[in-house]
Amino acid sequence: MSLPFKTLIKIERGNHLPMYVQIANELIKLIRGGKLTPGAFLPGTREMADLLAIHRKTIINAYEDLSVQGWIESLPRKGYRVVSDLPVIKPRSFQPKNNYPATSISPEELLHLPAFTRPGMVNDYQPGALIVDDGFPDINLTPYDFFLQQYRQQLNSGILYTLNFQKEEGGLLSLRTATSSFLNQTRGLNITHEQVAITRGAQMAIYLAAALLIKPGDRIIVSEPSYFMANQIFQQLGAVIHRVPVDEEGMDTNALEELLKTGTFKLIYVIPHHHHPTTVTMSTARRIQLLTLIKEYQLWAIEDDYDYDFHYRNSPILPLASADHDGRILYIGSYTKLLGPSFRIGYLVAGVQIIEQAIRYRRLMDIRGDFMMESALAALIDNGELSRHINRSKKIYAARLDKTTELLTSSNIPVSFHKPQGGMALWLRFDPQYPLANLLTNASANNLHLYGTAYFEGYNTNYNSLRFGFASLQEQQMEQAVSILAASLKKK
Amino acid sequence: MSLPFKTLIKIERGNHLPMYVQIANELIKLIRGGKLTPGAFLPGTREMADLLAIHRKTIINAYEDLSVQGWIESLPRKGYRVVSDLPVIKPRSFQPKNNYPATSISPEELLHLPAFTRPGMVNDYQPGALIVDDGFPDINLTPYDFFLQQYRQQLNSGILYTLNFQKEEGGLLSLRTATSSFLNQTRGLNITHEQVAITRGAQMAIYLAAALLIKPGDRIIVSEPSYFMANQIFQQLGAVIHRVPVDEEGMDTNALEELLKTGTFKLIYVIPHHHHPTTVTMSTARRIQLLTLIKEYQLWAIEDDYDYDFHYRNSPILPLASADHDGRILYIGSYTKLLGPSFRIGYLVAGVQIIEQAIRYRRLMDIRGDFMMESALAALIDNGELSRHINRSKKIYAARLDKTTELLTSSNIPVSFHKPQGGMALWLRFDPQYPLANLLTNASANNLHLYGTAYFEGYNTNYNSLRFGFASLQEQQMEQAVSILAASLKKK
Repeated sequence: MSLPFKTLIKIERGNHLPMYVQIANELIKLIRGGKLTPGAFLPGTREMADLLAIHRKTIINAYEDLSVQGWIESLPRKGYRVVSDLPVIKPRSFQPKNNYPATSISPEELLHLPAFTRPGMVNDYQPGALIVDDGFPDINLTPYDFFLQQYRQQLNSGILYTLNFQKEEGGLLSLRTATSSFLNQTRGLNITHEQVAITRGAQMAIYLAAALLIKPGDRIIVSEPSYFMANQIFQQLGAVIHRVPVDEEGMDTNALEELLKTGTFKLIYVIPHHHHPTTVTMSTARRIQLLTLIKEYQLWAIEDDYDYDFHYRNSPILPLASADHDGRILYIGSYTKLLGPSFRIGYLVAGVQIIEQAIRYRRLMDIRGDFMMESALAALIDNGELSRHINRSKKIYAARLDKTTELLTSSNIPVSFHKPQGGMALWLRFDPQYPLANLLTNASANNLHLYGTAYFEGYNTNYNSLRFGFASLQEQQMEQAVSILAASLKKK
Repeated sequence: MSLPFKTLIKIERGNHLPMYVQIANELIKLIRGGKLTPGAFLPGTREMADLLAIHRKTIINAYEDLSVQGWIESLPRKGYRVVSDLPVIKPRSFQPKNNYPATSISPEELLHLPAFTRPGMVNDYQPGALIVDDGFPDINLTPYDFFLQQYRQQLNSGILYTLNFQKEEGGLLSLRTATSSFLNQTRGLNITHEQVAITRGAQMAIYLAAALLIKPGDRIIVSEPSYFMANQIFQQLGAVIHRVPVDEEGMDTNALEELLKTGTFKLIYVIPHHHHPTTVTMSTARRIQLLTLIKEYQLWAIEDDYDYDFHYRNSPILPLASADHDGRILYIGSYTKLLGPSFRIGYLVAGVQIIEQAIRYRRLMDIRGDFMMESALAALIDNGELSRHINRSKKIYAARLDKTTELLTSSNIPVSFHKPQGGMALWLRFDPQYPLANLLTNASANNLHLYGTAYFEGYNTNYNSLRFGFASLQEQQMEQAVSILAASLKKK
């Protein structure tokens, strides 16, 4: 008695797989599902061909494939049957409809990280949707053509093959070298490629630095507020987090000193140039005090300098890492903020011992980077194109910063902010009477998507504040954005 | 009494920074280094201009920059002096020559991961160097043109901006959808995009799966030998590793069953299709037994299927994940093995709860992928180009496998191997009289670089064996490689 193979075996004409493979796979499902039991005979190839209305040769190929795979065997003059010594399969009606049923996994079995959803988030935009980001560059300025030309050249010159096999774990040598030279020239550092590891953006650099240094139970120090994704890394690694307030001069180094007197701390995470989220630049006096404390208390420090190059009132302020710190400051930056979000290339700067470990740890998560992109980026730096790009962008962003603050000031929006010295975002503090959660929802309904880091009641903490990227929108778009923002405010 | 500024202030003409910024940065170093103390007066702008033989306007700009940064202040009719309320800096002769001096970090302070170096490794190749890899595709076959066209199209159509802001944490929606459909068609899965997270290659997928499931002290099971980079991840996460031998039919499932009876285990890591490193394909009987054990003992399983699509004697064998397993098998694969090492895109397939957590964890390490590449890859899959690429490559690699095994068999090399059913590497077991360490060194000196995973005395374990990639070299190159291999053998 034969199974209703015509119904059970589904063949899709549009499927990329050859038909015989589809048939073989369907038969395997029937064997696995217990519908075809060990020892059971299959219809002869001619019969099966008739049943499925398919060419017999296709059935022969499918049966041969199953034989080679060890599912069925051919018996002379008897035909094909399911191998009889397959371990017994409990009969089940069918292959599961879904290999991954919705199950409730017990909390002990799986890690539980918090979600990032918040009011007003959408998956799809209407055409022409306005998006205010967290502080991203304008990708209309990105030298994509340079990258595409470089890719073409790598292909034509055959250099790709050699790139493949460079010792590339810490990033291509050419990019590590270009990066150290770029940092020496712009940040007053004095390093070589051996003190640089290339990462997937600043995020991976923070993760690596933290994973190398933090052991569960270690006490570490961050600003309050601080970059929440860094806090999540530290929590994930088992650190005990202590917080020092940030004001208009940056982290309060007197409060830090008081805290340091209370016990032993392993690490401090700071963002002195354009603090995230509040955009404030740390004052010179506090920088010096911070450096002194780092040395005095033998702290490790992660200096996150995610958008150093964009500073408007004056030239960028040299990072802490450029001073004398006995190698205790791990310096982090990113090309993503210069080129746009599809370029996930950042770097970690530290002593050679730490960089070696960082490279080994990176391999565990992500064997190597995109060396086509890394090689093109090295060329962009080496021929001065990156500097020209930065200078050009800086002029445009400075004007957009002016324009955005003017627009906000002349609007009736109940918001306070300090005009930042640099970076690509404002930190907007809304009157508590206007809850940010409502604003986000209303703005989204009005086709303005506010995607900057937000802190409000029930979400992180109750700053009722939002990062408001000004660099990526053109003047007219920003006018529209501020006008929708004003229209979306609603008292609680 | 003035400092010898002409000597102390170094200006580089080729530096991309404006000259006034260079001068300001040099002066900051002198202040930081204690050479210019708080309250000290700087030479007037005219005097400094003469000292440095530089236009006075440049000095004025430098001083203004320093004022805005808060390092110096202008006193009417007295000139510029270093701000007097800067915290006291201990006098030091100079800025450190190197921000990251070579220090010896105590073992308790830093993680210590093992290195990957081994005999015969070189950083630079002579032109025409022959490289045998671990089992990589031939990048001459990679459809790079398709990617470059797609990139150009994304730029021209302006779609890039929208891609930027897709909810892209688990990979672009288009790629997650294309991947689920590709896996359903080729691997007999039945999943949607919600059960797929895009990663940076299989490596990140293994890291994520392990990080979500393993708690320090958890007992887990791997094959012996197994993919050593996965073992390192498990160790790093604090797992206690138990090993089950692999033979010519894959993991010994009877030994596994005996082991499972001895206690509680959290997870098993398996590579059933083309075991790494030994390339063996797990037999059908053992697959079924393994599935039964996974369900019976409520194990979590990571099924690493890194080069599924390249199977030569018959069609690829459906993964364990395509069977009924209550969602306990996390399935991992990679596009890197289809397209080449610069395409670091892989995937993790699991139940929705796990995928959600994996996406959140991934953000901590690497905020998002390269969505230009992800979008182009989705198009490559959707229009059938990827399937055509696989079919074309498969024919070529099958011929190269035949050729390579013929060459090795007809050579006098004292090596044994089983011709694999698929994958892109052979597992060469050398006669113990010929130590692999010597072979690697000699071959490298003869311009043949053997970069496949190697196991030999003093390096991992003493299998005296090597993975020998056959897919990326053309026939003539492989002839040369085997001939150099023969010439590089030396008894101990």
